[in-house]
Amino acid sequence: MKAWPIWKSVLTNSIWHSETLTLPAQRRGFHLITDDIIAALPQINTLKVGLLHLWLKHTSAGLTINENADPSVRTDLEAWFNHTVKEDTPYFTHTFEGSDDMPAHIKSSLLGCEVTIPIADGKLQLGTWQGIILAEHRDNGGERSIIATLNGCQR
Amino acid sequence: MKAWPIWKSVLTNSIWHSETLTLPAQRRGFHLITDDIIAALPQINTLKVGLLHLWLKHTSAGLTINENADPSVRTDLEAWFNHTVKEDTPYFTHTFEGSDDMPAHIKSSLLGCEVTIPIADGKLQLGTWQGIILAEHRDNGGERSIIATLNGCQR
Amino acid sequence: MKAWPIWKSVLTNSIWHSETLTLPAQRRGFHLITDDIIAALPQINTLKVGLLHLWLKHTSAGLTINENADPSVRTDLEAWFNHTVKEDTPYFTHTFEGSDDMPAHIKSSLLGCEVTIPIADGKLQLGTWQGIILAEHRDNGGERSIIATLNGCQR
Repeated sequence: MKAWPIWKSVLTNSIWHSETLTLPAQRRGFHLITDDIIAALPQINTLKVGLLHLWLKHTSAGLTINENADPSVRTDLEAWFNHTVKEDTPYFTHTFEGSDDMPAHIKSSLLGCEVTIPIADGKLQLGTWQGIILAEHRDNGGERSIIATLNGCQR
Repeated sequence: MKAWPIWKSVLTNSIWHSETLTLPAQRRGFHLITDDIIAALPQINTLKVGLLHLWLKHTSAGLTINENADPSVRTDLEAWFNHTVKEDTPYFTHTFEGSDDMPAHIKSSLLGCEVTIPIADGKLQLGTWQGIILAEHRDNGGERSIIATLNGCQR
Repeated sequence: MKAWPIWKSVLTNSIWHSETLTLPAQRRGFHLITDDIIAALPQINTLKVGLLHLWLKHTSAGLTINENADPSVRTDLEAWFNHTVKEDTPYFTHTFEGSDDMPAHIKSSLLGCEVTIPIADGKLQLGTWQGIILAEHRDNGGERSIIATLNGCQR
């Protein structure tokens, strides 16, 4: 395995920054939010090395990383999850909030509600094809809140 | 997207705290452990901004975030995972530890063995409906160990 | 729940270290990379308490934690994911990069592209049976890049 340092080890004070981001209501499906996150957090640019932690405060939606280019990837993700976690599953008992509710809870645990993204040289270190995706699993999920926590050392 | 800071950026020393938590044996299923985690870690209250990382040291159980209120959500999660990752899957070869073992390994990778939860103002920033859940996938899993790592800046 | 501190809380400067690791091309399947990661990051040994964050910069492979001993677990993981996310799924529209491409994207979101592993006393705190696994979902995935970010306090 080849390895090369982006930076040698640094012993230093850390920067901590915490922010609540509110995403507008989106239709059910997989939505790219990379540009929105970066625009809301100019503090990313102040970090030499660090981590951005994003936490969605909900149990019927999720955060995931996937392709940022061809929208057909997001369409097929939505289709696969709908076929795999079916709304009419006969053994579901948690049904009083609508047929899309229990599937939304299961999808949320499958995808998770958080991502932690490395920062180096003032930028998120996403791969060329990686985007941050909000997976909205409810038909009418409404606004969604994300807590963004930044931690790192100064440039 | 609306954004407002919980705190402006802070440049400071960090607090590090590491602890091993042992959960008593639980029956197979999804179990809320939020209150146990908070009670075991009074140091959360000392942090202005920070992160709590929980790591389950096992490969046949998992940690996930889901609804903390109606227990039918946890019942349906257990049912869905049992239907989707079946014990009698004919092509499984790793069967000598019991029919619940290989499904437990698969569920563990699907849910993951870790969560990182944001802290602000001395409290975990879980959403209103979010709880920390131990997903026990073995019929007789026994005690489970979690490593809790706290990192943040002082209040 | 029993709890005992590995270390009492420490208020201190933090170490930050960032590195890009390149994994050689692997065949499709689940591959243990624990020893490669540890060998590439001797800085782990300098930390009293900390976290190692690993980020795979790709959307058609993943990182997961699972059993490090019996290789039949990894064989069955690969078989289950192939049966559950089928290459010939008729409703897939993202098919021009090959029949293994869209399933690879879905598996990547199911497993995730990151892990954060606790460090104490200079060592990764993996459980006895836990290993770090690269899940290669493409038939010809080629080299894969991981960004390793270390953060912690000095021993």
